[in-house]
Amino acid sequence: MLPTIEWKTGRVIMIDQRILPEQEVYVECTDYNQVAEAIEKMVIRGAPAIGVAAAFGVALGVSKIEDVVTLEDDFERIYNRLEQTRPTARNLFWALERMRASFDKNRHLDLPQLKEALIQEALAMDREDVETNKRIGFFGKDLVQNGQSILTHCNAGALATAGYGTALGVIRAAFDEGKTIQVFADETRPFLQGARLTCWELDKDGIPVILITDNMAGYLMHKGEISLVITGADRIASNGDTANKIGTYTVAVLAREHGLPFYIAAPMSTIDFSLSGGDEIPIEERNPDEVRKVGRQYLSPPNIPVRNPAFDVTPASFITAIITERGIARPPYTDSLQKLKTYHDD
Amino acid sequence: MLPTIEWKTGRVIMIDQRILPEQEVYVECTDYNQVAEAIEKMVIRGAPAIGVAAAFGVALGVSKIEDVVTLEDDFERIYNRLEQTRPTARNLFWALERMRASFDKNRHLDLPQLKEALIQEALAMDREDVETNKRIGFFGKDLVQNGQSILTHCNAGALATAGYGTALGVIRAAFDEGKTIQVFADETRPFLQGARLTCWELDKDGIPVILITDNMAGYLMHKGEISLVITGADRIASNGDTANKIGTYTVAVLAREHGLPFYIAAPMSTIDFSLSGGDEIPIEERNPDEVRKVGRQYLSPPNIPVRNPAFDVTPASFITAIITERGIARPPYTDSLQKLKTYHDD
Repeated sequence: MLPTIEWKTGRVIMIDQRILPEQEVYVECTDYNQVAEAIEKMVIRGAPAIGVAAAFGVALGVSKIEDVVTLEDDFERIYNRLEQTRPTARNLFWALERMRASFDKNRHLDLPQLKEALIQEALAMDREDVETNKRIGFFGKDLVQNGQSILTHCNAGALATAGYGTALGVIRAAFDEGKTIQVFADETRPFLQGARLTCWELDKDGIPVILITDNMAGYLMHKGEISLVITGADRIASNGDTANKIGTYTVAVLAREHGLPFYIAAPMSTIDFSLSGGDEIPIEERNPDEVRKVGRQYLSPPNIPVRNPAFDVTPASFITAIITERGIARPPYTDSLQKLKTYHDD
Repeated sequence: MLPTIEWKTGRVIMIDQRILPEQEVYVECTDYNQVAEAIEKMVIRGAPAIGVAAAFGVALGVSKIEDVVTLEDDFERIYNRLEQTRPTARNLFWALERMRASFDKNRHLDLPQLKEALIQEALAMDREDVETNKRIGFFGKDLVQNGQSILTHCNAGALATAGYGTALGVIRAAFDEGKTIQVFADETRPFLQGARLTCWELDKDGIPVILITDNMAGYLMHKGEISLVITGADRIASNGDTANKIGTYTVAVLAREHGLPFYIAAPMSTIDFSLSGGDEIPIEERNPDEVRKVGRQYLSPPNIPVRNPAFDVTPASFITAIITERGIARPPYTDSLQKLKTYHDD
């Protein structure tokens, strides 16, 4: 599998997820503004991957600072630019906060050492994310039985993370221990992460995948062709309400209607313990042309009004379990998520 | 509004719905095989429009017959070819049966008179379809209140019929009597009838329309932004179970989850009284490339396996009412639909 993102002395390299799988092109960022733009324009996407990108963005930005007198101001400028890229994914803010903590902790070092400390922190976050996903896979794989078919929405795979994936991490772990499984991938309009990224990833790994349009999941559930649903998450409130790619809520409603388990797979860094419920999660509305067009081709009349919320919130009551790297949380989530947090924080 | 289909001495002219709204191109059929192909390839689509096209196809096919000795065989050949174009829309079979009845009734005439009788029958069906839709609009408009927003799926408009539309007929009638309304149009993958055709039609008529992807309807319902749902139908069983464009079932599940009315608008010719329930309705699976591609552009890896059911069945229990040209049927539909049929058949 190609790496989603890489640090190479003074540069951040990302595979351009806007044009996969048609073309495998790498974008090279040599300053933090380019990293911010890459996040905004979805060259890189997926909450954990956005977090790692932001961490590298800070490391890259600080690495270019030459004047120690304006160091604090420069850091704030870098931080604020990256913070304003996308509003929904918790991991973005989590990663920035961790980079700030590292900055504060290493502020007493001389500038070259501080730069190196921040680079090392970002590299650690990159490595840890892959480990985290493997642990999510380890805990989650027992929720998938031999012979089952799994619906997933959007791409919560290697490309949405530093590697391995969250929802697709669970699927990979189940497949790797020899279970026969069938994945259905929602194409996930408007950005088509399912058609373009999930199908490409799973196909490369030899995991059986069937592509469907977003409006076919209900039909397949009604026919008994889907056993369970697993998706990733962009932000989880402390009560378990979960923001994820637009359409996730619809899949959750359908799963409950058909008595199917609906699982969220996400690292602890996606959980926002400062929010009591999903209503407080900001939902990004993106450019109308993402809906009007595919590639350069207009689908609709070019000036038709559009709504383009990039995410929706699935209430906790629709979620069977949340799979994290610290174990599986079940309802009531206010208790179970807090326990996962506290047990390890102690 | 441009006509969906027209008869011009020895030719059937259709607007090519595969490339609207980008291009307004007319396809001219000079034999019945071309009409059959146009139905198969979705140059023309929408259950009532398919019915009218099949009627013109029979008239066109018979108009080219020169040998009265093989007349019956030729008629069967034309009939069978058109019958095998698409399996789900009831109106196709209804229209062919009506053309056969006309053929049988006028069989005693000499050949030129028989040909003219069949042309007149098809032209009558074309005219009647517009009248039928206006009556559907008349009955349905009171279900839409001033200030409401209406979700529709696929295109059940002028382009899906001989003119005016079924679901969009109700919307047009409500708008024309001065109600302030807002339409949300699901884009309706894979063929994008909503993005391409519904938006184009409503925009031309000045009816406010907002385009969304299929997976956004749940979000908007949850936010309280949708008041009711109206769609068309391809086949309705005698118990009210309704086959319509893939994704309709999902919209119906979402409507019930949010306590919203879900209406079907369709002519009596869409009702198949020979079927006791929706499980008996054949569901067409179409070419996988419709899902893999938009236009000439592949979205997914080109060989990825695909499911492509063109329709799904919404159980009658999800349907608030069925709006026909004879009035509004409400549950239990086995009684109410039968009453609409019998009252007028008497």
